[in-house]
Parts: sequence; structure tokens; C-alpha cells
Amino acid sequence: MKLLDIYAKMKGDLDVIESELARSVTSDHPLLTEASTHLLKAGGKRIRPVFVLLAGKFGTYDLERMKRVAVPLELIHMASLVHDDVIDNAQTRRGQLTVKAKWDNRIAMYTGDYIYGKALSIVTDLHNPLIHQILAKAMVQMCIGEMEQIRYFFNTEQSIRDYLLRIRRKTALLLAISCQLGAIAAGAEPHVYNRLYRFGYNVGMAFQISDDLLDLLGTEKQIGKPPGSDIKQGNITLPVLLALRESTIRDPLMKEIIHIRETNGAGDTKSALKLIRKSEGVRVAEALASRYIAKAIEALQGLPDMTAKKNLVDIAHFVAKRSY
Amino acid sequence: MKLLDIYAKMKGDLDVIESELARSVTSDHPLLTEASTHLLKAGGKRIRPVFVLLAGKFGTYDLERMKRVAVPLELIHMASLVHDDVIDNAQTRRGQLTVKAKWDNRIAMYTGDYIYGKALSIVTDLHNPLIHQILAKAMVQMCIGEMEQIRYFFNTEQSIRDYLLRIRRKTALLLAISCQLGAIAAGAEPHVYNRLYRFGYNVGMAFQISDDLLDLLGTEKQIGKPPGSDIKQGNITLPVLLALRESTIRDPLMKEIIHIRETNGAGDTKSALKLIRKSEGVRVAEALASRYIAKAIEALQGLPDMTAKKNLVDIAHFVAKRSY
Repeated sequence: MKLLDIYAKMKGDLDVIESELARSVTSDHPLLTEASTHLLKAGGKRIRPVFVLLAGKFGTYDLERMKRVAVPLELIHMASLVHDDVIDNAQTRRGQLTVKAKWDNRIAMYTGDYIYGKALSIVTDLHNPLIHQILAKAMVQMCIGEMEQIRYFFNTEQSIRDYLLRIRRKTALLLAISCQLGAIAAGAEPHVYNRLYRFGYNVGMAFQISDDLLDLLGTEKQIGKPPGSDIKQGNITLPVLLALRESTIRDPLMKEIIHIRETNGAGDTKSALKLIRKSEGVRVAEALASRYIAKAIEALQGLPDMTAKKNLVDIAHFVAKRSY
Repeated sequence: MKLLDIYAKMKGDLDVIESELARSVTSDHPLLTEASTHLLKAGGKRIRPVFVLLAGKFGTYDLERMKRVAVPLELIHMASLVHDDVIDNAQTRRGQLTVKAKWDNRIAMYTGDYIYGKALSIVTDLHNPLIHQILAKAMVQMCIGEMEQIRYFFNTEQSIRDYLLRIRRKTALLLAISCQLGAIAAGAEPHVYNRLYRFGYNVGMAFQISDDLLDLLGTEKQIGKPPGSDIKQGNITLPVLLALRESTIRDPLMKEIIHIRETNGAGDTKSALKLIRKSEGVRVAEALASRYIAKAIEALQGLPDMTAKKNLVDIAHFVAKRSY
């Protein structure tokens, strides 16, 4: 099934999540409501709520309970984006002005804090301490991931393991717990929600590797910002680390990266991108993403065959085939 | 009993809280650990943990449980300070460099996020959904309070109610729930923890009014920064709002405030401070603070007479008598 068909089948429940998201950020403070709503309207794939809902099908599915997990997970994702935009000094995201650009850094800071708080407050409506704990711990790990990214800016000597650990915290963990918490909220057994966790984790790893590839190989039209944005910012991703291990590429690529760093991101990334694109690193990174997808699908074996399982497999294949 | 004597009597338990605080922010990320530890070492009165511990005495006091409430409350307070320092562009706090000054805004942003997450994660060790909910909701209200402060910057036409609602969210709420959650964690009954909540709330209101008075009446040595910092920043506090209602003071004070705003805080606050200091507003604000203290002590009536109760009363009196 195509991705759009999966979304179409889930439309009723996703509409409920969407209006709950809108309601959740409506506070008695007009500016907070406005900034948060602006953020919501910028859209996104709502992949975390989709994972929650599909995972919930492996237990006793109850939309009232599902939404109290789906909404907080999307909110935490949104809050992390607002704070990232402050850090990255980003003017636009998904073609819309960012909160920090439309208002300012102060508003973006407190809008993020507010949304984090709201997320945790909604999930406490489910009187399940295990869910609260998993969510709070994930928030901590996500922050560590963001800090790791800063710490490794322009660090060309970091290991592949450093990179993998970072994207695990930054991206894969939230997708993993989306699956896990959806199943827990639906009362599923540990052997079920542990498999779903592994599915989400592996899809998340593949997703971030693909995203990092897209930033290097895509066109500005495809990715909504100039290619090479990561490298400009100092974020050295997997294909770059791999390319740096190739003897004919290392020296000229190092020179380009140093130039980009020394010009504070004002330097041209064209030559660097050209070197990376012709490297084996791109192929190896693609292969690694595919391996994560295979692992994700493998994790679902042993779960009952049902539509939700097929949908998750289809979504995993879609992540693997993202075009760049 | 003097404040120092109360602290001395509690030293054993407060030392445990102190080392738990240090342990809680030790992560596998060196920069996060360093930034958080720097923040911890800057000290503070640890009034929230003190309230938690004293409130716990009204139930079945168990330090293991107490610390899982006391530590998160102090951490939330600390996280809000780090984020405020980014917003206020503050270079020092309590005579120490701020995280944003010692490192930068990015580090301060994620250090704050990390500490918030840690706080919520520690409290989930207590499998008490009510406690999780109260804490998460308070975080949301605190953010709204901060946003309200920004919204009302240089707004001289705001009502006294606007001011009181703001300091309630910004300050009083966290002190209120410190008392409430300490008692809940100790298994106290609602009629007990509701009274303690009211105590903390009223002390908190008095505390913030006194703090705002101190900024107008204190010396640089007493308050650790030049007096009039609030007004420079645009934060119009109670004594100023009251002074603006006095016919002989309103026009010249308005002129001074407009001048400060138009010079982006570079203008001199001396004339404004002189006008405010001679106003009735100072006396009325002092009287209001005293009334909150009286209400706080009243809230404790009906609770069993024990050392903890006497200590809370002494702390309330101390807040009322802060010298400026």
C-alpha cells in the first residue's frame, strides 16, 4: 500500500489527533497560542502519531487513550524543532517562517518550554507511571543528542559510532518510543511492545541516515533548503565521515571543510558536495540505511499478521526509498 | 528560630539533597555535566527542597521519597534560571558567570532542556501519577508566567491583577507545590497538603513582592546588581504600578519610564528610582507582602503543632523581614 493510502485509511483518527494538537496548545496566553498554532500549521508528516496509532492496534485500541500518547509525542518533536531553530538561527522550516523569525528568540524559547510542559502534562492524564518515565527519559536523551551534535561540530575525526549514537538519541529514540508507548497505552504485553520499540528504533536510524543523504544529494527544491546545509553548519554526517576515509578524497575534502569552517559557513559547499557525491561513502551509507530497514521489518516477525503490521512494513519501505 | 539555625538542624538531610542534585546532572555528556554543575555550585537558598522536607514531616517522612520530589523541584527552578538568563542576556547571577556567558546561548538552551527533562524523569521514580501531573502542569504555568512578563514589558497600564497573576505563575506556584508535593510524597491527607499548598503560595507571593521591592530600594551590594534592573528591562513591578496611580508622581515617572524604554535600557534609572522611593507605592506593596505572610501563617492553623510547623512560620517571618 502507498503511504498516502495508509494515511487515508487512518484519516478519521488522525483528524482527532490533529484537533487535539490544536486544542492542546490553546492557552490563556494569546502569544503562546499564536506561536504554537503557527508551528502546528506548518504541518509535517505526523509520523510519530501514525506510529502510536498503528502500534496501538497490537493491543486494545482505544482512541481516547491513544491520543494521550500520540499528542505528547508530536508536541515533544515540535518543541525540539522550535529550540533547534533558535540554535540554528533558522529563518524558515517547511517553507514557513520559524517562530524565532516571526517573533524572536525569547518567544521561541518559552514556546518550546511551554510545549514540552504541555506534552508531559497531557500524558499524565494516563495514570501510567511507566509511560511518564519512558517519555521523560527520552526527553533527556534527546537533549544529550542535541548537545553531542554541537560538541562534534566540524569534528572530522569522530567515529562512525559517535555518529550513530548521536542520531539514535536525536531521532531514532522518539520514533522507537512512539511505537512502544502506543502499544503500552493499549495494554500490550512486553514481548509485543519491545518488538515495536525495535521496529521504531531501526526505522528511525534509517530515516536519519536517509535525511542526511538527502541533504548532500538532493536539489534545493526537493529538500526545501540549499543542499549542503548540514556541512555549512558543521554537522558532519555519515556519508562525509565515510568519504573522509577514502584516500583519494580525504585531503581535498578536508581542505574544503576547513574552508567552510573558517568562513563561518559563508564558504561555498559546491566542491565539497562534488567530492562527497562521487565517493563510496554515499553507497555505504545507503546500504546501512537499507540494513536498518531490514532489521526494522525483522523486528515485526512474531507479531500477529494484521493490517497495522502491513502498514508498518510499507512505511519502513517508504523510508528506505526516499528519493534523492 | 533563626533561618541559619533551621538550616543547621536540617543539615544531614539537606546534604543528601545536595549530593543527589550533583549526581542527577552528571550525564555521559561532559559539557552538560559541566554546565549543570557550574549552575549548582552557584548555590542558592534551596528554599524549595527545604519546603519539601518540612512539608514531608506532616506525613510519614522518608528521605528516599522526599529527595525524589525535592531534587526535581530545585532542578526545575534551576532550568528556568538558565533559560531566563538567555532571555535577559544576563552575564552574571549570584556573582557567578551565567551558563550563557561562560559558554553560549546554545549550551544554555539545551542545558535548560536537559535539566527540565531530568527533573521530570527523577520524579517518575515515585510511581505516583498525581505528583507527575502537578509537576508538569506547574511547568506549563511557569512558562506562561514568563511569557506574560515579556508581553507586559513597559506596559504601564497593566492592572494590579495582571501583576499578581504573573508573579503567582512565575514564583508562587513552584513554592506552593514544593510544600504540597512534599506532603503528598509523605502520604499526607488532602486537608493537610492543601493547607501546605496555601502556605507556600502565600509565602511565594510575599517573596516576589519583597524581591521586586528590593530591586527598587536596595543597594548594589545588597542585591548583587544595580538597583532598578527590573525597570531597565521593562519589568514593571507592583510598587511602580502603585506609584503611577499617585497624581503628583504619575507624569514625571511616566516620562522617565518612556525615556528608559526609548534608550533600550541605556538610560539612567536614578530619577525614576527617586520618584518611586518617595511614593506611597512602596508602603502599600510592603503592606501587601505582610498580608500574604499573615495568610501563609493562617493556612498552617489546624495542622498539628510540631517543630516543622514552627520552622515554616519562622521562614515566613524571615521572608517578610528581608532587609532593603
